[in-house]
Order: sequence, then C-alpha cells, then structure tokens
Amino acid sequence: MRALESLDADRIEAEVGEIARAAHRAARSLAQADGATKNTALQAAARAIRDHCEAILAANGKDVAAAKGLSPAMSDRLRLDEARIEAMATGLEEIARLPDPVGRVLASWTRPNGLEIARIAVPIGVIGIIYESRPNVTSDAGGLCLKSGNAAILRAGSESFHSSSAIMDALEVGLREAGLPAAAIQLIPTRERAAVGAMLRMDSEIDLIVPRGGRRLIERVKEESRIPVFAHLDGVCHVYVHGRANLEMAREVLFNAKMRRPGICGAAETLLIDRAIAEPGLPRLLDPLIEAGCELRGDEAARAVDGRLRPAREEDWSTEYLDAILSVRVVEGLGEAIDHVNDYGSHHTDSIITEDADAAERFLREVESGIVMHNCSTQFADGGEFGMGAEIGISTGKLHARGPVGAEQLTTYQYRVRGRGQVRP
Amino acid sequence: MRALESLDADRIEAEVGEIARAAHRAARSLAQADGATKNTALQAAARAIRDHCEAILAANGKDVAAAKGLSPAMSDRLRLDEARIEAMATGLEEIARLPDPVGRVLASWTRPNGLEIARIAVPIGVIGIIYESRPNVTSDAGGLCLKSGNAAILRAGSESFHSSSAIMDALEVGLREAGLPAAAIQLIPTRERAAVGAMLRMDSEIDLIVPRGGRRLIERVKEESRIPVFAHLDGVCHVYVHGRANLEMAREVLFNAKMRRPGICGAAETLLIDRAIAEPGLPRLLDPLIEAGCELRGDEAARAVDGRLRPAREEDWSTEYLDAILSVRVVEGLGEAIDHVNDYGSHHTDSIITEDADAAERFLREVESGIVMHNCSTQFADGGEFGMGAEIGISTGKLHARGPVGAEQLTTYQYRVRGRGQVRP
Repeated sequence: MRALESLDADRIEAEVGEIARAAHRAARSLAQADGATKNTALQAAARAIRDHCEAILAANGKDVAAAKGLSPAMSDRLRLDEARIEAMATGLEEIARLPDPVGRVLASWTRPNGLEIARIAVPIGVIGIIYESRPNVTSDAGGLCLKSGNAAILRAGSESFHSSSAIMDALEVGLREAGLPAAAIQLIPTRERAAVGAMLRMDSEIDLIVPRGGRRLIERVKEESRIPVFAHLDGVCHVYVHGRANLEMAREVLFNAKMRRPGICGAAETLLIDRAIAEPGLPRLLDPLIEAGCELRGDEAARAVDGRLRPAREEDWSTEYLDAILSVRVVEGLGEAIDHVNDYGSHHTDSIITEDADAAERFLREVESGIVMHNCSTQFADGGEFGMGAEIGISTGKLHARGPVGAEQLTTYQYRVRGRGQVRP
Repeated sequence: MRALESLDADRIEAEVGEIARAAHRAARSLAQADGATKNTALQAAARAIRDHCEAILAANGKDVAAAKGLSPAMSDRLRLDEARIEAMATGLEEIARLPDPVGRVLASWTRPNGLEIARIAVPIGVIGIIYESRPNVTSDAGGLCLKSGNAAILRAGSESFHSSSAIMDALEVGLREAGLPAAAIQLIPTRERAAVGAMLRMDSEIDLIVPRGGRRLIERVKEESRIPVFAHLDGVCHVYVHGRANLEMAREVLFNAKMRRPGICGAAETLLIDRAIAEPGLPRLLDPLIEAGCELRGDEAARAVDGRLRPAREEDWSTEYLDAILSVRVVEGLGEAIDHVNDYGSHHTDSIITEDADAAERFLREVESGIVMHNCSTQFADGGEFGMGAEIGISTGKLHARGPVGAEQLTTYQYRVRGRGQVRP
C-alpha cells in the first residue's frame, strides 16, 4: 500500500477525508453482503496471512529494529513470530465461523391495526479503530468489522506501521477474492499523529471510534472525538472476599485474578475483605501473592492484621497498576464493599467470593459495573471467554455496548414495518 | 419548588452541579426499586395531577400571559386545558401498566467451564431532558425515566416554567407516596439559559441527554454536549410510490403521511415516484393534497407531468418543512429511489408503496433509516403507535436507540457471571 510520510496537516485532513468517504460508500455495499461472502473474505484473508508469513515477519523486523525506548511490555506486544501470525489466521477463521450478526430478528410483533413491526440487526456503518503497538489488532479488528458488515478504518500506531501494512495486504487479498470493495478495510497510510485528530473530526462519515492502547491514547480520543467512542479508560477491578467465603476458593480466585496476567484490564487491582474473616483469613489469602513477588498495599486495618503490607494511599483505591501490585482494604460488610466498588472502581469487572447466595445476588444487582461476577476470576472478562468469539475491546461506557465488544455489539438495529395501506387516524 | 432567577453563571453552575450529584445518588436507589414501588409513584403522581388541576391551569395561565411573540404552533403547545391535564394523568397510568423494563434477562448461556453468563437490563443512570414549550414533557419524560429506573433532570423551556413547576409538584407527591427519593425527578429551578450549558458539561453525573424542541435547540445541544445525546435533528421522511404500487392505496397513504399533522417529525416531506407511473399517476396522487391546500414543489420531470407544481430547488430535497408543503421527484426506479432517500433523508422514517414484494424487501433492507416501512403512512413513526407505550422522543442516531425511545430503550445492560471458583487457565 501507499505510505505517506511527513505530510502537512491540510494534506493529511484531505487524505483522511478521502478514506472516510470511500469507507462510507463501501459500508453501503458491505451492509448488503451475505454471510457466505463475508466468510469467504475472512477465510481467504486467513490463507493470505499464512502465505505472507515471511513478508509479515520481515516488516515486523523493521518495526522492531526502529522501536527504541519502548517498555518491555510494549516491545513484547509489537513482536511477531510464526505462532502469533498463525494465531491471527486462526482468529480470522474463528470469526468466519461465528453466526452472521446482521439480519437477526431482535423482536417482532403485530399491532391491532395489522401493522407488522420487526426490529432487525443492521451494521453500524463505518468504524474507526485507533491502536498502538499490537499489529494483530489489524486483523482482529478488520475481521470483526467485516463480519458485522461495517467498513473499517484502521489507524495503526507508528511503531507497528510496517507490520500492520503487511497484514493489511493479506486482508486485501481476502476482500478481492470475495468481490467485496477494497475500501471495506483501509489502513491510514501515514504515521503522522495528525491523522488521529482528522479521523476524530469526521463525524459525518465515521459512526464509531474504538481506541485500543494506553491511557494517554484513550484520554486523548475521548477528549477530542466528535464521534461516539467504545473504550475503557481503566480497569480498576475488585475481588471482594465476603465473610461467608470459602477461603480456599478465594485464595485461588484472587491469585488468578491478580497474577495470571497482571497487565490486562481484567486483572484485579484491589482486594476487599470483610473484617469478620480478615484474621486469620487475610494472611492466608496473601501468602501465594507474596511468594510470587506481588507488592501489597493495605489500609490501616489490613496492616494491623498482616504486617507485610505497605501503607496504601488514597489514590491507590482508584489506580490501575497493570502490574504485580495489589491494594487491600478491610470493610465492615457487603454494603461498604458495594459502595467502595461503585465509588472507586471503573465499572469494568468486579467479583464477590461467597457461599451466601443472597449476598452474592445483592452484589450482582447493586454493583454498577459492566461485568459483575460471583465466585470466579475477574480475568474471565474477555470476549473469547464469554463465548462471543473475538472482541474488538471492552467498553466501560453505559450506552449500546458494555463489557466485551464482539461482532454482535458492532451492529445496531432498524425497525421494518409492513402494512397493507394503513393510515394513522 | 424554589425558583432561582437572574443568577450569575458561577452560581448556576454550582446549583446545577448540586442537582446532578443529588440525581446521581438518587439513581442508585432508584435502580434497586422494584416495579410495584415505581408504579405506586406513577399512579400517585397521576392522581396528584388531577388533584392539582386548578393550580396547574393557573400556573399555565401565567406562562401563556407572559408568552409574547411565540408562533401560533408553539403557543398551542404551551397552552393546557382540562383535557390535556387529564391526558398527562392517563399517560402516567399507561406508563405504570407497561412491563418493568429493568431486570429483563436479555440473553443467558453457560460456558463449557460451567460459568453461567446472563445479560440483564439495568437503568442507564441519570438522564437530562431539555425541552421547549410543551409542559406535558415534564410528566411524560419524568414518568418514563422513573419507570426505567433512571433519575431525571428536567430543564423546561423558560416559556413553560410555571406550568412545568406545577406539574413537577404533582410528580413529587408521587415520589413521596412511594417512598422514593425526591431527587429521582428534579426540575432545574431557573429559566437562565446558562443552566443548559452547565448540564451539558456534567458528564461525570449525567449519562444521557434528550433534547426536545426546535432545530436550534437540538443543534446547540449536539454541538455543546460532552454527554451522549438521543435526538433527531430533522425528520426528512419520504414516501416512494413504486411502479407497481396500488395507486389508490398510494393516494391515501401519501395524503395521510403529509397532511394528517404536517408539523410532526414523521410527516412526509418528499414524494418519490417512478417515471413508469408518473403519467397519469402523479396528478391523481396530488389532487387531494392540492384540494387541502398543500404547496407542491417538483423537479422538471414532475412539473412536465403536472403543471400545478412550482419548481423545487436543490435544498428542497433536504428540507423538513413541518408545514403543508411537499417536494416531488420523479425517479427511474427502485435503485435511484433508495439512493435519494439515503443521500438526502435524515434516517428517520421512509415508506415504499408497492404490490411487488421483492421491491419492498429491497427497499426495507437498503434504506438506512431507523424506521423503514412498506405500504403504510410515515406518521406511524411513534412510540405509542409502535405499542411501546409512551416515548421520550425519536432518535435518528445510530447507537443504542433508534426510532421511538421508550422505557426499554432507556435501559442498558450488565453481564452477571456466576461461577463455582473457576479461574482462567
């Protein structure tokens, strides 16, 4: 594909505008594509990703060589190998196997006057995805948008630009083989940051923005966008160990929720524990975390029970560490725990551990988060784990989509009304 | 209720902030209120509206006396009489009879690892409604928000301030009788326009804004709001008379779609007609409109067939007249009609008249509007006519809610996940 470098702002605005208008046109024909055609494109793209493995690795080598000063975590996300490329291909094949989310009859009824009303799932239109160092987002997001009948405009982070371009080439093969418009998935062909601002202003052409990356990117997108955004700024997730918890279960779930992968948004950041079981429960819960090198920061009551904790400060309760650090607070009971989660959490994912069914139901009902859990690990907050196939991200917003955003959540609806000449009295 | 007049901007910002925070707190307990409690409040409010009829009429008299320079249409909307007050009361009783939209199980499934996942309807939170001269919006919007478990902040137009305050007093009686927090429905106690700007900045406390009023209000709200907005800016609705239409049916539907109430958003503004039947079909379709005093503006082809039409200009195709005016265009067939609707329409409501089922299905599938219709009048675009009970408005946006926005559309969802100690591998 073309690569545009060092363009002035007007030129970038014009280029992005052209891409957005092409996407808008492509979205119309994509919305009418049947499931088989979209799946043909996805399967052909998967084959092309395997066929282009060498080229993708070479492009990724360029990106990795050029990427100086990335954190180890970002550098790891940027790097591709054969296994990760194969995972992209199988990811597209899995998306192909999902049911077609377009055309589903969400509801239908007949009015007394004979009007037949149906609410039908239709694509949203044009979706802009803005992401940082993960080149696999190119195929995941492109594939999910295609499956849901939406045109995609991908804005890869500058550090993954060559890798994303090489993956885009494979997606284009898929579109071509299925006879779908090339503009159904487009990659913004410049690394200039001004392209992001230009996308966020295209509210006549782009219907939805999905940012994927660090807090700074999400904040900028939310601040600047004239277009609705699906995102999560933070994942301040809680595990609440209730007074009637099975402590052995709590120990395993807490360890998994924190340490399985501390850097994902569904990782727990705060442990709340009822005073009634804090002694001797808390040290038993924390032993495996300390052994695994997790840093612990507690309030006074927690530190009184377990001297191994450093003092927590007020900001700890609303901090997403994305690291092997856990804040710990002793609460008086269910009500205080629910208030803490609602006040300090980020409405992402929160779990109660208890054998008390009534307490669990109250927690599930009163905690306001997109995902609330009973007796399981917060790290299940994931579209794949929910059985939705791939996800384009997780939303902590309140409207349209909450929790994992998969192909179904990338559709909206339309009312289709069938009559026999009815007029309104 | 308190009335604040001539406040400075800082004071208004502080007052609105206090109201918004109170609403946020009220929303938490309202979200947990059961259906019976909410219905008790709605029924008691209906009774109080009847009991306060005199006071509401007196307050309305003050508003009407003070309202100079309103258009006849706005003046009519402002004026209350006993029948309109009774309609508000029965409206609240109808809302009480609707099923509780909160707590519905939207989907549920079990994963291979035994996790049980359910998607449950929950309230959105705090909804701000900004409206102009219709005092009945106070009870309609307040009632719908209450039913759906959301706290409402009502900002009545200055010209309806006394009427709305009197209606608000009745709603407060209902909240009190049901033991619900008074802040569940609040009216902004100032007529200062700065209060609107202050509301639109409260994105930490207010989750959704619904503007109801003229184009200028909607444009301002969409432009300024930091909060998601459900609204329709325009209702440029089409009736397309296909070559295989039953002309008698088309004549009746078109007349109703235009003339039943030309000033509502679901009124037709443009007639598209296939060239194949324009002669002699068009004059027959237009006769009743001309007799009723409707002004007609046609493209060249339409004027060639029917000399009674004035020439239409380019801007006519995207103008919402809200009046007895209709633009008329001759098209070559279905594809051109669909393109015209998608390019010039406002994605509100569009209807095809045809006996050809395939043509109808293609129109329903390819027209991108929130409501698409076959063989019926566009004036059915209404929550009541859809059987949804009351509506808070009609949305032409693409996300969350499209078409009539009723109690169901004022909910969002939450995932509730139940496990037995599962951890993620």
